[in-house]
Amino acid sequence: MFERYSIGRLFLGRFEYGVDLLDELYRLCEDQHIRIGTFWVIGAVQRSCVGFYHQEEKRYQPISLATPAEIVCCLGNISAKDEKIFIHAHISLSDEQGKVWGGHLMPGTIVFAAEFQIQELQGRILQRREDFITGLTLWHKA
Amino acid sequence: MFERYSIGRLFLGRFEYGVDLLDELYRLCEDQHIRIGTFWVIGAVQRSCVGFYHQEEKRYQPISLATPAEIVCCLGNISAKDEKIFIHAHISLSDEQGKVWGGHLMPGTIVFAAEFQIQELQGRILQRREDFITGLTLWHKA
Amino acid sequence: MFERYSIGRLFLGRFEYGVDLLDELYRLCEDQHIRIGTFWVIGAVQRSCVGFYHQEEKRYQPISLATPAEIVCCLGNISAKDEKIFIHAHISLSDEQGKVWGGHLMPGTIVFAAEFQIQELQGRILQRREDFITGLTLWHKA
Repeated sequence: MFERYSIGRLFLGRFEYGVDLLDELYRLCEDQHIRIGTFWVIGAVQRSCVGFYHQEEKRYQPISLATPAEIVCCLGNISAKDEKIFIHAHISLSDEQGKVWGGHLMPGTIVFAAEFQIQELQGRILQRREDFITGLTLWHKA
Repeated sequence: MFERYSIGRLFLGRFEYGVDLLDELYRLCEDQHIRIGTFWVIGAVQRSCVGFYHQEEKRYQPISLATPAEIVCCLGNISAKDEKIFIHAHISLSDEQGKVWGGHLMPGTIVFAAEFQIQELQGRILQRREDFITGLTLWHKA
Repeated sequence: MFERYSIGRLFLGRFEYGVDLLDELYRLCEDQHIRIGTFWVIGAVQRSCVGFYHQEEKRYQPISLATPAEIVCCLGNISAKDEKIFIHAHISLSDEQGKVWGGHLMPGTIVFAAEFQIQELQGRILQRREDFITGLTLWHKA
């Protein structure tokens, strides 16, 4: 399933040292009333937490990375779940040796520096609801 | 070489459980007549296949990953080759330990869940043809 | 802090075999007078150099990768520093085993083949200046 959109507002900016990356994405979307859109972030984190989804067990396993890392790429979308803004993002992080780690962005990813682009879209606000095959909350048709 | 474009249609959506990611990207572009554009995908796969290009031997080596993984980032473009739609995408995938794998997206990458943005462009449809230096099919000037 | 933008010119193209990726991004932005925007690149490199920022010591450590690799994802932004164009990009690269490496894009990353999208924006040209907390040059408010 998919929907067509036109381009809404575009934001370029940065998050402050010490904030939680996922919290700040939520805060900005709420403050600016961004209901549907996509975004990406590059920068660095003080520490991070990513999720791996166990497809058989239908649950996220958190993976904590206690050390500073570069945000190589964080890519995500903004839609709705239970009438609230819902942010879904995946992130990759590189360490001191240049090795890359990543997964589903979770709370506990603390910004050292982070530069973002958020592209708001104009069109139907996609709604998430539980999908029985995967156990995830996925977009459904209007 | 490069060309200038204006923004065409923008699609946000998801692919179904069990489909081949590259096949579905082709199908959507064909169904919607998307001839030139860019896209990205996040989500998860049941298994995957990525390519590494041996620059000296001028051939892709497929690398199969038999286990479930998160799609950390899949980024690509849509253009033409031999008068047909041609999709070029690179993908990174994370495993249960958070380690990231990746390369050139190949057939055999099976969707668990996948959310995409496709940005159609308006302008010259870039054509790929064989490049003798690299052995790849690359865009050429009009 | 953030600013709102509207969409400017969009470029799709490729860089030539043998050039330095960061140099070419600068050259294109200078030639086309792109002052503010974002971009991404996929492709392959002959060799590469990425940086890891030591947050305590406030310095970048270069990490050289002497072997050919796929560019899984290179994502960045264009703004200004000391009245000149400044490019900030992060890159991930995959090797023959599919393992992914990455960090802050540095000079010494030599293109084998590289396909890019550059999105120019229209609005305030963000300026970088030294940030005392992080030691980085970050965007500041107008």
